[in-house]
Amino acid sequence: MERTLVELIAAKRDGHVLAETEIHRLITSFSEGKLADYQMAAFLMAVFFRGLDDAETVALTEAMLHSGHVLDLKGVTGTKVDKHSTGGVGDKVSICLAPLVAACGVPVPMVSGRGLGHTGGTLDKLEAIPGFRTDLSTDDFARIVKDIGTCMIGQTKDIAPADKRIYALRDVTATVESIPLIVASILSKKLAEGIDGLVLDVKVGRGAFMKDEANATKLAEKLVRVGTRAGKKVVAVLTRMDAPLGQAVGNANETREALEVLHGKGPADLVECTLVLGAEMLVLGGQAKDAAEATAKLRAAITSGAAVRVMEKMVEAQSGDPKVVANPSLLAMAKDTVEVRASRGGFVTGIDALAIGLTGVAMGAGRTRADQAVDPTVGIEIDAKPGDAVQVGQVVARIIVRDKSHAAALVERVAGAFAYGDAKPAALPLVIKRL
Amino acid sequence: MERTLVELIAAKRDGHVLAETEIHRLITSFSEGKLADYQMAAFLMAVFFRGLDDAETVALTEAMLHSGHVLDLKGVTGTKVDKHSTGGVGDKVSICLAPLVAACGVPVPMVSGRGLGHTGGTLDKLEAIPGFRTDLSTDDFARIVKDIGTCMIGQTKDIAPADKRIYALRDVTATVESIPLIVASILSKKLAEGIDGLVLDVKVGRGAFMKDEANATKLAEKLVRVGTRAGKKVVAVLTRMDAPLGQAVGNANETREALEVLHGKGPADLVECTLVLGAEMLVLGGQAKDAAEATAKLRAAITSGAAVRVMEKMVEAQSGDPKVVANPSLLAMAKDTVEVRASRGGFVTGIDALAIGLTGVAMGAGRTRADQAVDPTVGIEIDAKPGDAVQVGQVVARIIVRDKSHAAALVERVAGAFAYGDAKPAALPLVIKRL
Repeated sequence: MERTLVELIAAKRDGHVLAETEIHRLITSFSEGKLADYQMAAFLMAVFFRGLDDAETVALTEAMLHSGHVLDLKGVTGTKVDKHSTGGVGDKVSICLAPLVAACGVPVPMVSGRGLGHTGGTLDKLEAIPGFRTDLSTDDFARIVKDIGTCMIGQTKDIAPADKRIYALRDVTATVESIPLIVASILSKKLAEGIDGLVLDVKVGRGAFMKDEANATKLAEKLVRVGTRAGKKVVAVLTRMDAPLGQAVGNANETREALEVLHGKGPADLVECTLVLGAEMLVLGGQAKDAAEATAKLRAAITSGAAVRVMEKMVEAQSGDPKVVANPSLLAMAKDTVEVRASRGGFVTGIDALAIGLTGVAMGAGRTRADQAVDPTVGIEIDAKPGDAVQVGQVVARIIVRDKSHAAALVERVAGAFAYGDAKPAALPLVIKRL
Repeated sequence: MERTLVELIAAKRDGHVLAETEIHRLITSFSEGKLADYQMAAFLMAVFFRGLDDAETVALTEAMLHSGHVLDLKGVTGTKVDKHSTGGVGDKVSICLAPLVAACGVPVPMVSGRGLGHTGGTLDKLEAIPGFRTDLSTDDFARIVKDIGTCMIGQTKDIAPADKRIYALRDVTATVESIPLIVASILSKKLAEGIDGLVLDVKVGRGAFMKDEANATKLAEKLVRVGTRAGKKVVAVLTRMDAPLGQAVGNANETREALEVLHGKGPADLVECTLVLGAEMLVLGGQAKDAAEATAKLRAAITSGAAVRVMEKMVEAQSGDPKVVANPSLLAMAKDTVEVRASRGGFVTGIDALAIGLTGVAMGAGRTRADQAVDPTVGIEIDAKPGDAVQVGQVVARIIVRDKSHAAALVERVAGAFAYGDAKPAALPLVIKRL
């Protein structure tokens, strides 16, 4: 006899493995209103304690995926590859990565999210481009990927709606920090894009969701195993997120910095992160035999201006002003700048990405609730990075605000995020490992 | 800074002890709609895994207790004592116990429940008495306890409403089987009666909620500790619930059997259970110095007819027909009887109380959902009890139904509940231990 929904919750609570059909039944019942929010919440907490094995996680991923529409990108030739980052501070990689990889012949259909808490969101950053729309229909999305090679939109109500509801529940029931639930949430949304391959940037460190390498490795391994079992080519890269990535933290300034990468400029760590992830995407997409060949192709697409041209076309196709691509400084920023100075001389030994991210939220560049608006024109610019030598009183960061008369507390918070020492700290590699 | 409600859920999830004020805040927020059902469900599942220590359980009990009105029985002189059973099959003890103990001078204010699943409920059984009302106001309840010594009603909406909502949630989120949640639920309802003392009948065995002695002991110990910390005199008795208690399983027939105990009749196990619990109540209530003296008083109240007279007054005060007390056979039963016969000769070695209880549900004497009605006139009569010698084909049980043409499946189920052997089984004492 088929087990009741309550019996399925009890079975997971007691540490039993659920059948694929049972996981599907839970999600279908939830979508149809037969499993109530409170029952799903109890199930999620039981999963927090008991976990889901790979087969259960695949089933959950596919059940959530099929709660909505899976985009049909059959009209797009080539191996379609996307990138997903678990989120960090100053992580604007998607904005330069998608056009760059598309310029090298790998289609990149990208559905992104908004910022929440200390981590920013690609959609908020892109919307700093005048006119840029991220709320396209899935038909327009498919057409733009086909014509231009890439398109970047937000999660529509048709994409994995069960995940959307479950994610909202997890946020208010203390069930976010569960590896199988994170894996199923990420993969259900990404698989709904109609991709063939996925490169995962699993961030590790103070500014990341995963604070330590052991947990990040577990998450990365599970993402790769489950994604592979779900029939996709999946690679994960663990990258360091102790200090913000690049110099810009905000929205318009982050987009500006990402556009600079397409012009062959931009901070070294941001360029490195973009090239490492891009190389993986090119190899997955069959446009390079190894990372070396892929990196050379990516560099060539920057030098030739091919990546800039893809970005211009994409911005235009998404109703944005393409002039900002050639001239990123056109992106509007707030008028006031307040300087943050080194409290002592020596070397910058660390910049607390979490503190910088939370300061960004406090000044309006981010949000603490999903229904809040962000101010795209405010942000923080990091001028001295870990390892840099500084004199006492030297400017180490700038805070861009609408009204500097209220910025004293912000200066104090940003200053407090910097740590100094007498010795130059050992340079830690951006990439921790690849799975 | 005060922790948010989500942080409190996370703290319990991570195995931390919550402060008394934090537990109160969770329940108050739940009552006020600031903590949603799904958040409470997640909290309950976290408690399932992490438990609550005694101080937390006292706080939860008192928070649920004070979510409603605590009955004011200051007008009733004497030490007010109630009994609570964790539920079994054929457990009609409350119906004879309350008037018997009241006849010995201990006031018994009793708020009872309805049947759900395989266990019956006192309210359903009492309502088999024509006219009997269990939905009295708390004022009437207090007045009747004062005038007559006992009154038996159902949980009003004013009694521990937070417990009522939480219990409904637990039922559908697989969080029923948690000792601290069970303890807080039982005690919050019982403490709302305005009692001074409580005797707990913790049932153990196939027909009980607690299947094994170890878990039942844990529950009983926690009930006693938490109840005592909450300022009440509390005693717990573990009693066996492998086979049904007494002969009758149903509603009208169980009330009839309970009334027979007041007339000095009734099955030996039912009489023993009533006297054991009644003796504890008399000692707690200060009307006897020990169990021996208490038992003698109880027997005297039966012999003298004092217990019958209290019951008659209580039935009359609660709008019921008092004639059934003197003549229990007036209670209406369905007209058809089907016999269940021994499949072999030898000794009855066991009667599966769970199977009998579920058969009762299937024939309409019980319910699987709280909103179902029960048929008071149907039921099962057990004619051979464990230890009895039987001949093959001898009647071991009778099933009382409205229409015997559909009773074949019931006969099979009841017959299947009986186990037989060649040797007379060792008689196991009804009382396992006292705490």
